[in-house]
Amino acid sequence: MAEKSYHMTPEQFRQYGRDMVDWIANYYEEIEALPVLSQVRPGEVRQKLPGAPPREAEDFGAILADIDKVILPGVTHWQSPNFFAYFPANASGPAILGDLLSSALGIQGMLWATSPACTELETHVLDWLVPMLGLPEKFLSSSLGGGVIQDTASSSSLCAMLAARERATKHSSNRRGCDGRLVAYTSNQAHSSIEKAAMVAGIGAENLRLIEVDDSFAMRPESLAKQIAQDREAGLVPFFVSATVGTTSSNALDPLPAIGTICRDNDLWFHVDAAMSGTAALCPEFRYIQNGLDLADSYTFNPHKWMFTNFDCNCFYVADRKALIDTLSILPEYLRNQATDSGEVFDYRDWHIPLGRRFRSLKLWFVIRYYGVEGLQFHVRRHIAMAQQFLEWVKQDKRFEVAAPAPLNLVCFRHRDGDKNNEELMNCLNRSGELYLTHTRLNGRFTLRFCVGQTNTTERHVEHAWKRIQRETDKLGGSK
Amino acid sequence: MAEKSYHMTPEQFRQYGRDMVDWIANYYEEIEALPVLSQVRPGEVRQKLPGAPPREAEDFGAILADIDKVILPGVTHWQSPNFFAYFPANASGPAILGDLLSSALGIQGMLWATSPACTELETHVLDWLVPMLGLPEKFLSSSLGGGVIQDTASSSSLCAMLAARERATKHSSNRRGCDGRLVAYTSNQAHSSIEKAAMVAGIGAENLRLIEVDDSFAMRPESLAKQIAQDREAGLVPFFVSATVGTTSSNALDPLPAIGTICRDNDLWFHVDAAMSGTAALCPEFRYIQNGLDLADSYTFNPHKWMFTNFDCNCFYVADRKALIDTLSILPEYLRNQATDSGEVFDYRDWHIPLGRRFRSLKLWFVIRYYGVEGLQFHVRRHIAMAQQFLEWVKQDKRFEVAAPAPLNLVCFRHRDGDKNNEELMNCLNRSGELYLTHTRLNGRFTLRFCVGQTNTTERHVEHAWKRIQRETDKLGGSK
Repeated sequence: MAEKSYHMTPEQFRQYGRDMVDWIANYYEEIEALPVLSQVRPGEVRQKLPGAPPREAEDFGAILADIDKVILPGVTHWQSPNFFAYFPANASGPAILGDLLSSALGIQGMLWATSPACTELETHVLDWLVPMLGLPEKFLSSSLGGGVIQDTASSSSLCAMLAARERATKHSSNRRGCDGRLVAYTSNQAHSSIEKAAMVAGIGAENLRLIEVDDSFAMRPESLAKQIAQDREAGLVPFFVSATVGTTSSNALDPLPAIGTICRDNDLWFHVDAAMSGTAALCPEFRYIQNGLDLADSYTFNPHKWMFTNFDCNCFYVADRKALIDTLSILPEYLRNQATDSGEVFDYRDWHIPLGRRFRSLKLWFVIRYYGVEGLQFHVRRHIAMAQQFLEWVKQDKRFEVAAPAPLNLVCFRHRDGDKNNEELMNCLNRSGELYLTHTRLNGRFTLRFCVGQTNTTERHVEHAWKRIQRETDKLGGSK
Repeated sequence: MAEKSYHMTPEQFRQYGRDMVDWIANYYEEIEALPVLSQVRPGEVRQKLPGAPPREAEDFGAILADIDKVILPGVTHWQSPNFFAYFPANASGPAILGDLLSSALGIQGMLWATSPACTELETHVLDWLVPMLGLPEKFLSSSLGGGVIQDTASSSSLCAMLAARERATKHSSNRRGCDGRLVAYTSNQAHSSIEKAAMVAGIGAENLRLIEVDDSFAMRPESLAKQIAQDREAGLVPFFVSATVGTTSSNALDPLPAIGTICRDNDLWFHVDAAMSGTAALCPEFRYIQNGLDLADSYTFNPHKWMFTNFDCNCFYVADRKALIDTLSILPEYLRNQATDSGEVFDYRDWHIPLGRRFRSLKLWFVIRYYGVEGLQFHVRRHIAMAQQFLEWVKQDKRFEVAAPAPLNLVCFRHRDGDKNNEELMNCLNRSGELYLTHTRLNGRFTLRFCVGQTNTTERHVEHAWKRIQRETDKLGGSK
């Protein structure tokens, strides 16, 4: 007689796994029919869930049925081709299956020794990305630098700031502590994660300088230089600058060469955040966006935004891996092993904040192989071309104005009739369920953002979105 | 004619998904035949990978074939029933399929508005766990507290320390910055993540006090009280204590009531880390391990260790969610929305360091429903019973000594003939491929750790492991 067990057997997994795969294939076949932005009200999902946890085991079929009934109405469909909001978080078949393999192997890659393939595939794939994206060779593992996968750019930018903090305070008496005189810099258009990092690292919000930007929303290097000089004079210690390649608000491109030169001259850590737009560098014609990266100490971009690799997958590179490891390494006895002691291997737990880590390079490896470099380039080019077509349409409609340069796949625009009209237009469009876009404020004005980057978005979807925007604008009346 | 595309179609996904599911089912059927600890040498995995990334798209079949050829030899099989190393990171069919759904939906749960189901299911399932584990009601979302899923206990302990830091410095002029006088406390047996957190948060390694322990490796409350008083006298500012329910080294249980009382009397933030052992509280007879939790400000445990939910899934609870949110919230314009402005919803991005977040509650929901509370209790009890049986066997073999109390599923023991013999014994066992166990140092002595917690481990595997240990010990000679 078989032992009593509640586990799912491999044979059951074979069956239920197929059911789940079929559910997913159906979902992707039908996704365009679903309202992109979830229409539920606060509390509506919870109302459908039982108050108490189940005492007895339930059938897998019952769980699967609740996905349609309970979960799906509360989902905003980030994988819908009609999703133009925020920055994308696109996914693809090979990524989902690579991630499935990672879940099933269920390994902990904290040390080389706890699964050598997890560390070595990660190092290898991150080395592949260096020539694929035209990154400086100092980021290769064969140089003094190297790359690591983290969850988000928020986390890796924090690690950059910590390594910079460590470098700036290494002669302090409180090892790995903070110094109230440290000052960090970024533009007033940079992502909120830099402010969060400054707070987490104990630098403090008051000691993060938000440098002003020019007409294109890019950081003014002369303002940066001036602020650094002022802070030095005041007895403070400038230590870290974060520049952005493609800001979240408007996709502005900070001038890396000028900023990098200021960092070099002032001995500051130079970090570059290219969270979404870094993917454009797959195509040689867009690599100009990262000119000046040779001056950077660290670089971060997210394959989980625009490179068909489902969340979470952030790639973080440093030019001097020793600086990072010295900042984050901790070696208790229970983690010691021969491979670590030999110094021949990377132990990635010393490259980020968490100790445990899953086998995330599998999905990236699957994506790069399944698409090939050519396939990735093809789809990124196409997304950019679609956004540029949308930009042309906006320019031709006199009711609208373009609110910022649109070098890649994000178009910022607004109705000329002011904030209230733009907000109403956005809300009407999003309520329609036919598309989803979000907003920002540029020069204080409510501005619509239209970002093309979902995997399955094609010309048809962008054209439909634009016609829908025009039709909704007709209803609003106002400027002709 | 179809448009040119490199994407995997839903129809292809249906086919390749089945191939991957079958591969996984086969893997679990054959896993016992594989050496638990990978036998590769540094660089061996990378040697099998092409130096340059593929220019052209590859077939999915070619990728799948490389899993067996390139990846598997480099995998240490954390899901093998013969894995007794570290703490487990167990997985199960329902968890893997819930995680697959999360990958496929590919949503970003940073805000309630970006997918209400992601936030609401998470809140709901974390509320379920409160009665399931007998946690204090103050951790319910209907009280002033609440729970959130993070990646690891390292990250959530860091967040606890940050919230404590914020509470201790809120009247400082540098908002959300550090103060060099702050002092944190934990035992000298606590997990390295507390030291890492102190460093990240800018407290500094020098300002983390490692309090001495008693014979059972549990923190001495009187030493804690004395150290706090000394630090106060020296003009420093004690602010945070982390106690452990089940240390990584030996599964020691810190005395929460005494430590919590000291924290209350001194107005310190009291954090409790029950990373693995917290799962035992599913069974009422083991809930005594968390007596005193009613005094805690925050609590963390990992379903991804022992609760059949694949990595990553850490549950973090706070008694005062406002304290956490005030510490970590940042609200740029591009993330504003009606639901957030209404104050009616949780936006989980303010509960941790990353901004982006995947739909991790799905796998936890799948696990709780598929097993039911009864099923989870059944398997946890069984793991503990197996470890207790192993403990008896060790006690009966005069060549060995038990090195620490074994209240749950971890047994620390050593051969009486000293460090060298124990290290040799461990290395021989691990090289055999038949089981995998790791070590720690207790009272300065090399000690073997045997932890029972992998999903499919049964009495047969534990018995085989013990016999293998005895046989290998016979070969070593020495004490009879």
